[in-house]
Amino acid sequence: MTAKPRKQVHLAAHFPGVNNTTVWADPASRSQVEFSSFEHLARTAERGLFDFFFLAEGLRLREHRGRVHDLDVVGRPDTFTVLNAVAAVTERLGLAGTINSTYNEPFELAKQFASLDHLSGGRAAWNVVTSSDAFTGENFRRGGYLEHSQRYRRAEEVVEATRALWDSWPTDALVIDRERGIFARDIPETAFHGSQFDFAAPFVVPPSPQGHPVLLQAGDSDEGREFGAKAADAIFTAHGTLEAGQKFYADIKGRLAKYGRAHDELLVFPAATFVLGDTETEARERARHIRYQQVSPQTAIAFLEQVWGRDLSAYDPDGPLPEIEPDAATEITRGRVRHAKDPLAVATAWREKAEAEKLSIRELIIEVTARQQFIGTPAQVAEQIDHYVQSDAADGFILVPHLTPAGLDEFVDHVVPELQQRGSFRTEYTGTTLRDHLGLRHPHHTPVAEGARAS
Amino acid sequence: MTAKPRKQVHLAAHFPGVNNTTVWADPASRSQVEFSSFEHLARTAERGLFDFFFLAEGLRLREHRGRVHDLDVVGRPDTFTVLNAVAAVTERLGLAGTINSTYNEPFELAKQFASLDHLSGGRAAWNVVTSSDAFTGENFRRGGYLEHSQRYRRAEEVVEATRALWDSWPTDALVIDRERGIFARDIPETAFHGSQFDFAAPFVVPPSPQGHPVLLQAGDSDEGREFGAKAADAIFTAHGTLEAGQKFYADIKGRLAKYGRAHDELLVFPAATFVLGDTETEARERARHIRYQQVSPQTAIAFLEQVWGRDLSAYDPDGPLPEIEPDAATEITRGRVRHAKDPLAVATAWREKAEAEKLSIRELIIEVTARQQFIGTPAQVAEQIDHYVQSDAADGFILVPHLTPAGLDEFVDHVVPELQQRGSFRTEYTGTTLRDHLGLRHPHHTPVAEGARAS
Repeated sequence: MTAKPRKQVHLAAHFPGVNNTTVWADPASRSQVEFSSFEHLARTAERGLFDFFFLAEGLRLREHRGRVHDLDVVGRPDTFTVLNAVAAVTERLGLAGTINSTYNEPFELAKQFASLDHLSGGRAAWNVVTSSDAFTGENFRRGGYLEHSQRYRRAEEVVEATRALWDSWPTDALVIDRERGIFARDIPETAFHGSQFDFAAPFVVPPSPQGHPVLLQAGDSDEGREFGAKAADAIFTAHGTLEAGQKFYADIKGRLAKYGRAHDELLVFPAATFVLGDTETEARERARHIRYQQVSPQTAIAFLEQVWGRDLSAYDPDGPLPEIEPDAATEITRGRVRHAKDPLAVATAWREKAEAEKLSIRELIIEVTARQQFIGTPAQVAEQIDHYVQSDAADGFILVPHLTPAGLDEFVDHVVPELQQRGSFRTEYTGTTLRDHLGLRHPHHTPVAEGARAS
Repeated sequence: MTAKPRKQVHLAAHFPGVNNTTVWADPASRSQVEFSSFEHLARTAERGLFDFFFLAEGLRLREHRGRVHDLDVVGRPDTFTVLNAVAAVTERLGLAGTINSTYNEPFELAKQFASLDHLSGGRAAWNVVTSSDAFTGENFRRGGYLEHSQRYRRAEEVVEATRALWDSWPTDALVIDRERGIFARDIPETAFHGSQFDFAAPFVVPPSPQGHPVLLQAGDSDEGREFGAKAADAIFTAHGTLEAGQKFYADIKGRLAKYGRAHDELLVFPAATFVLGDTETEARERARHIRYQQVSPQTAIAFLEQVWGRDLSAYDPDGPLPEIEPDAATEITRGRVRHAKDPLAVATAWREKAEAEKLSIRELIIEVTARQQFIGTPAQVAEQIDHYVQSDAADGFILVPHLTPAGLDEFVDHVVPELQQRGSFRTEYTGTTLRDHLGLRHPHHTPVAEGARAS
């Protein structure tokens, strides 16, 4: 009887900055605009045999109290621009870009991702978002921000249309006939007549190595989960505990069957960060220090103001929570989802927590904004990560380092070897495409590997 | 008395393929989809100290007689995707992308080009086109193709709006205050209320190294020339003879004053190709062979069909021109500007030429579709190019090699040293940005070189 092979951990590297609390206050922090930063993180992830590199999308600078006053980022370069450049300096690493389906059109998206898949040799992934950035429209195009359910309807149609374009060239479309000077023939028109899009034309890029770039998705609402179960190859989550992770994992995997999909056709990637130390004590102290760096006194007040909807600049961050009630009608921050749907209830809960645990404003914000963290020695962190995966709370993690761009270095140097030693992580890339790394089947449409390249 | 310094030749490398007659029939030809091809040409151009690498835009596969039957290209990867990747594997070479202003929006364009300018350290250039591809709309978005003058109106507003966004951050906007956790402040809203666009928001990318990416333009109509004289940093032309080049050069430079611009603020780049040989005779024979490769018997008939508007497949390419008159009402080819506005007049002129010079269909098409070529030994080609520049018929050339991707190698190896020996071409890059290479001033807006990078 053969032992069941050990479940393998999948890892992705999230470039910190946009939508994340990176530690800009650290003297070792570097630019999030210059290419060298992106290149460093990507090369480190590839050195660590990660499945993919991940970029968020920032359509607008966040505003607080009517001013651009961004506490954690300095400008937001275009996602595709960076990803395409990273493709040129890496060989095997998957390349995942967050691109919204609300302001983009299927023809262009299909062309951009197919082009990236070609030039990277089959490493493109698309994290489809509908954009939660509720005020994005006005700086962008013609306005016209869609309400939540409309956004998902549009997203589904965008995915359907891009897949139709990717699948449109028959495998024998490319005929490299140098003598007769004929290189392509019988490329059929892709006619798409949906509720959101209506076009008819032959697609312009030959089938790319992956056939379909890998589709990633985040979104915890019921609509988000259904969309993921129907269409995505991997899904991001933010469930902090092992139990919550297992529950989500079981839920999302349980939704696959009705779409005719197998258990391993969708991977679950919770987001997590990590803090390492030579001893557990050292790691815990370091983690505490990082949280204080991330949540400066000003950041603590700004966070509180998001919930309170009021100017709280007169309050002492090291003092108790304000007794004044939140102004539920005022939206003080733009470009970030409001922290609380019911500010009064949140204020009450926070006051109770602060009183019970004797927390100042800053201490409270440090507590309530904490994300999933793996803290300890490299062996301990490897054990924790592996435990989540072996217990079916995850298929792997998308890791957000604290420091740009060198925050992943110590993980790759020290935790990856521990995972390898446990038999839970690859010791070399065995395939060339991101689908290979993730163990995903290539779509039924066979890419025209040779002919497409006229070589 | 100091001698006037010799006028310097500027050179750009056009990746052949889209919109060009590259020689796919040559056994040494390689893919125009795989990244290695783009990388090879770009690295060669950089080795030759060229000003920039140039990519066209292909929004749609060309159709002939109702089928995709592309004689010279095999798919068209996205322009930005390729350019961004090339940025990562080059250091000094300018990077010019053709991107239409008809189907793109100023906010996204400003963000994409500013991001490329950041990641390349100041090497981005935008070739603004309105898209001559008269059937582009239907495969693309919502349709809505604009008529000619509307397209230029929109182009002008797109350029105006993108420049407003690029100029919007004050130079002291970025404050890297690690202690206080503040990195940007007082980013003003860019409010743009035009006839085509209406938006109001702070821009998302800090000022890039060039302030404004270099603006390139092509277009020989009066509207095109005015647009170039008003807004472009360099203009492409297709004037074949020295005299026609000088006339265009004088005309376009003469239009600058009314926009308050100096003579050297707009460079003129005719397109040209080249054929080298150890002797002039060898080069001429090679050039003749290349033309026969480019215009295969099938290509000759297809070209004729474009003018005739008829199926001419029954005619012998090596025989005389058809006696049947063109069908002026039928558009047989899509995705390419019709060769003739008055097919009957063209047919008459071509028949007269063919009769006088005793040319077959194929021989005639080879003659009438020839583009500007420099043919000869490396020393002769260098002399010809230099002569055009010193005679004010050009400031330099955008060179389209015949072969993908290695067609530029011999030019860099043999012609560049000849130009250097004449004192007409740089022997090293003296600046880091494309504006430096082209001798263009940086726009008045000073880029926030240090602060912008949070380093």
